[in-house]
Amino acid sequence: MTAKPSVGTLAAPLVEALIRDAATLRLGVEKTASGATIVDGGIAVRGGLEAGRRITEICLGGLGFANFVADARFPGWTTGIQITTNDPVTACLGSQYAGWSLSEGDFFALGSGPARALWAKEDLFGELDYKDQAETAALVLETDKRPPDSLISFIAKECGLSEDKLTLILTPTTSLAGSVQVVGRVLEVALHKAHALHFPLDRIVDGTGLAPVPPPAADFLGGMGRTNDAVLYGGEIALYVEGPEDEAEQLANGLPSSTSRDHGRPFGEIFAGYNYDFYACDAGLFSPAKVRVTALSTGKTFTAGDYEPALVQKSFSGA
Amino acid sequence: MTAKPSVGTLAAPLVEALIRDAATLRLGVEKTASGATIVDGGIAVRGGLEAGRRITEICLGGLGFANFVADARFPGWTTGIQITTNDPVTACLGSQYAGWSLSEGDFFALGSGPARALWAKEDLFGELDYKDQAETAALVLETDKRPPDSLISFIAKECGLSEDKLTLILTPTTSLAGSVQVVGRVLEVALHKAHALHFPLDRIVDGTGLAPVPPPAADFLGGMGRTNDAVLYGGEIALYVEGPEDEAEQLANGLPSSTSRDHGRPFGEIFAGYNYDFYACDAGLFSPAKVRVTALSTGKTFTAGDYEPALVQKSFSGA
Amino acid sequence: MTAKPSVGTLAAPLVEALIRDAATLRLGVEKTASGATIVDGGIAVRGGLEAGRRITEICLGGLGFANFVADARFPGWTTGIQITTNDPVTACLGSQYAGWSLSEGDFFALGSGPARALWAKEDLFGELDYKDQAETAALVLETDKRPPDSLISFIAKECGLSEDKLTLILTPTTSLAGSVQVVGRVLEVALHKAHALHFPLDRIVDGTGLAPVPPPAADFLGGMGRTNDAVLYGGEIALYVEGPEDEAEQLANGLPSSTSRDHGRPFGEIFAGYNYDFYACDAGLFSPAKVRVTALSTGKTFTAGDYEPALVQKSFSGA
Repeated sequence: MTAKPSVGTLAAPLVEALIRDAATLRLGVEKTASGATIVDGGIAVRGGLEAGRRITEICLGGLGFANFVADARFPGWTTGIQITTNDPVTACLGSQYAGWSLSEGDFFALGSGPARALWAKEDLFGELDYKDQAETAALVLETDKRPPDSLISFIAKECGLSEDKLTLILTPTTSLAGSVQVVGRVLEVALHKAHALHFPLDRIVDGTGLAPVPPPAADFLGGMGRTNDAVLYGGEIALYVEGPEDEAEQLANGLPSSTSRDHGRPFGEIFAGYNYDFYACDAGLFSPAKVRVTALSTGKTFTAGDYEPALVQKSFSGA
Repeated sequence: MTAKPSVGTLAAPLVEALIRDAATLRLGVEKTASGATIVDGGIAVRGGLEAGRRITEICLGGLGFANFVADARFPGWTTGIQITTNDPVTACLGSQYAGWSLSEGDFFALGSGPARALWAKEDLFGELDYKDQAETAALVLETDKRPPDSLISFIAKECGLSEDKLTLILTPTTSLAGSVQVVGRVLEVALHKAHALHFPLDRIVDGTGLAPVPPPAADFLGGMGRTNDAVLYGGEIALYVEGPEDEAEQLANGLPSSTSRDHGRPFGEIFAGYNYDFYACDAGLFSPAKVRVTALSTGKTFTAGDYEPALVQKSFSGA
Repeated sequence: MTAKPSVGTLAAPLVEALIRDAATLRLGVEKTASGATIVDGGIAVRGGLEAGRRITEICLGGLGFANFVADARFPGWTTGIQITTNDPVTACLGSQYAGWSLSEGDFFALGSGPARALWAKEDLFGELDYKDQAETAALVLETDKRPPDSLISFIAKECGLSEDKLTLILTPTTSLAGSVQVVGRVLEVALHKAHALHFPLDRIVDGTGLAPVPPPAADFLGGMGRTNDAVLYGGEIALYVEGPEDEAEQLANGLPSSTSRDHGRPFGEIFAGYNYDFYACDAGLFSPAKVRVTALSTGKTFTAGDYEPALVQKSFSGA
């Protein structure tokens, strides 16, 4: 393998375009006193599905593509999002995964996107043997609040950049853009679970993902419920992997959300059952409904899991 | 809300690209004696589906996206067109709607696209509180005849521009490009009907549309029939709206073509029944077969209407 | 009709972009001693689906579009590729068709893409009345070996260019990129069969194609089997043609793979039955499963053939 591409450098023109087109995308742009740029993806502004699509491509570090497609799998919910990439592990785990936990006072958010690879302090980056050297940083925060200035300074410092090189993109879970960018993680959650199952990441060659775009919910819990249900009960991915066929088969069997003890109920119900403690949920739940894994060494494909159309319908249509 | 974007300015690079690529898109380009540009989308030239897709994006004022997708809803008619936008009301009603009625002598055509927002004399623009200030104008005319020079002068003058700043794009209903650009209005007709139902336009936040692309018919009436049937019996849209939930529900119930007394027969037959008087048809007929409306205030989605596969099949396959 | 566009000139920026983005697309790039550029699409490198998509658009001479779509026709194989074009006959037959047979010593490969139109010695180019005058050449070779230097020199010479103007793109049948670029020929095989059926090519106005993307096989024969099965049993196309309605009907009835005596078994089995002699297979087999042909003169559409989901499933899932 060649040296890994710079997700920050590849995403930079996409971030510039997002800021340039902010008015037509109905996004807000603010320069902080210390020079950082904050893009409001749906707090005080409307944003929209297209903004979410472009934020998803930024999250993928310029190495992945998010396209709206006609999704015929769930009658009535025909707006789907399809993910393809140039390099799935770097795009999804080296950039898109929401692995940077940020908090200060009562502000809390998970950070995702290319800035994570500049920071590179998650254990995952050791395993990926990856640290980005980009000259600008973009971090997507799933939040409905502006982060405090001191936290912004902290993020820039951790990235090794001055604040004027940092862009924060805020996407509330209840916004249109936020809904899209969460379900745009359908391939990423599969890669993350593959990692949790100890499948060697350097053997994952390519992948695609597909998920229905849920209608935004009115509150945070509802939004969490629907975006998770879209992936857990409506998501589908393909992985193409190297190595022995039986390990590809094990991966396929281990991946789908149906392997979890928590599978089978709307995520909102599961979450309530754990008193809204995210980390009490079975980590194995967070993966697509249906997977296929192709062993490139033999050409054999293993399929596991299936959609749950009734759960998707219940989750998306309910108030 | 921020100031509305300029549909003319956003569409200008798309119009330039259409003219630059005219030879490969198989379009004709003529400069009139007074300097206007006329693009022939399928009268003396072939044009094609891709030309229609690009003309649709021009019609949407550079604020919308038209993509061919695999549409599995109607077996055998798998080429669909999907519409997404940055800003649906401005894109569809401020630009795409065919609201400028133009006639001189025996020439008659409905004008759509960004030039309408420069003219801005339709009542609709008062309600949208929108008047474009772009420096160039593009108007799409659904016609199979070149408009007379004096009408071209009139259009430029009404837009407040010299004729060399005006581009007219002619798309016959029986051409491939014409077929695409009409069914590419699937979201626009829903917005127009929402307006007719007195739903406040400023509450419509986002939307998507999907319609099967019909085969071109051999004559004008056949083309009108099929493109309308594609929307009335095969079109599907989603709207995301603000405001009370019950008003979203009323909107959903009021929107689909099935609410019309004329629903249920091929449009060609309906039209013949009214002696080919377009304005005698029930205005409520012109909307998609199936709609879903999400009330963002509560997160609840209301679905109404359904496809009519047998009518789509009859309409598209017949001579 | 206007003069045909230059497929080499239109593809040149796509070739430049492929080389520029080679690292992120995981492609290899080599400059030969005599200045030719060789792009490795999946021999010593990984490449990927996206690389295959971009190589398909190069093959189409910059006149066609290959997009991944959600394909609901074959449960479990939802990654499809859709082909649309500005000009199907020039894109597919003037460029994409693998019509240049190249061999030297034990090296053998079929060449496809825009360089064919510079060479233009196939009979087909006489019928198309087409010879490109582009200043650069790109040829896609379906092979897992680097061609010998003398063959590279020969290709450049036959194109009338110095070697530094030539780019060769190598796509093994067992690579991800190779799998995509073969099934990306779903519309081209239909046009080629239309030609074999003596349908006048200048009457074919437009077309679209759709095929499921098969998982790569582990060996050449497996790869040939699956990519062919994807088209023969899972491919679908639309053509829009001029001329008498009955000739459009004859074309539709003659086109699908089901007209062939060899139809109905996995291609690998058919091929083995002919002792792996490609030219012993019925040439009429190589076409999509399902076709629709619209007679533009009357607007009537004729449909013939159908998918074979069981064969697609057997072919794609087997080792």
